[in-house]
Amino acid sequence: MIGAVRLLGLDPGLQHTGWGVVESAGSRLRHLGDGVISTAADQPLAERLCTLHRGLMALIEQWRPDEAAVEHTYVNKNPGAALKLGQARGVVLLTPALSGILVAEYQAMEVKRAVVGTGHAEKAQVEAMVRRLLPGAVIRRADAADALAIAICHAHHRGTRRALAQGYVPA
Amino acid sequence: MIGAVRLLGLDPGLQHTGWGVVESAGSRLRHLGDGVISTAADQPLAERLCTLHRGLMALIEQWRPDEAAVEHTYVNKNPGAALKLGQARGVVLLTPALSGILVAEYQAMEVKRAVVGTGHAEKAQVEAMVRRLLPGAVIRRADAADALAIAICHAHHRGTRRALAQGYVPA
Repeated sequence: MIGAVRLLGLDPGLQHTGWGVVESAGSRLRHLGDGVISTAADQPLAERLCTLHRGLMALIEQWRPDEAAVEHTYVNKNPGAALKLGQARGVVLLTPALSGILVAEYQAMEVKRAVVGTGHAEKAQVEAMVRRLLPGAVIRRADAADALAIAICHAHHRGTRRALAQGYVPA
Repeated sequence: MIGAVRLLGLDPGLQHTGWGVVESAGSRLRHLGDGVISTAADQPLAERLCTLHRGLMALIEQWRPDEAAVEHTYVNKNPGAALKLGQARGVVLLTPALSGILVAEYQAMEVKRAVVGTGHAEKAQVEAMVRRLLPGAVIRRADAADALAIAICHAHHRGTRRALAQGYVPA
């Protein structure tokens, strides 16, 4: 697509980090790839974070995204679970930034609104809409569908003042 | 010192990450350096994590530690604070591991026991003992004293089965 940008959506998790790459040109969207980076629970934490970092580096190398987006996780779980998620999220935010890729953050409600049209959509509605917005894509994993939703949200918002305020600087 | 190893202790925080380097040979300890890596609260999160990562890389380059140690943070704060700390902690665990430096983790009680002799010591007692164990060192910051305490704890424990179980593999 002419004037297209590649956007990498990321849904962080220590065990499974979902990822999805879309191409965006104007109001058109195209699915390029998606998947999950998994780490082994029996490995030391530092090793798991290395596996996640290397997986992200390989993705960036393969897809060469212009920009990345990560959901601004709202945590209502126990502090221990939040710490664990935070450790993975730190690596997920760091890795594209180290490659000079600007990383936008969006609230969960913004992602739902961008994809479904309402900030109070159910998880299943978001997934169904991701499949409708990216026809032909075979999305096997829920984590990957969530990551694609974040990429689609960024496609809608990029270039706006809101994204600018969240750290996005247009190229 | 003959047969000495350099140990890097790290006390993670998004705003301030304390660090301390000690040389350990048998039961002897020597203070080499300490300080704090700070990030600006008005920067986007991904940028702050890059600053932290680059600061850690510069430390590793300067001091060439053989091993690193990080406190296994116990969080009883709100999940939002735990997520924030986790993001910094993820980068603090990742960065030495990427350089091939094995990273040990210790519970706060183990650090207190190693430095003061009891797992229920007060923070001020830990700091006072760090200064006594490392005579001549001018330690300006509490974060740096905490990081040195973690390095001292690792000096006591390294090579034991306990450290081995936490991911430490002797060279």
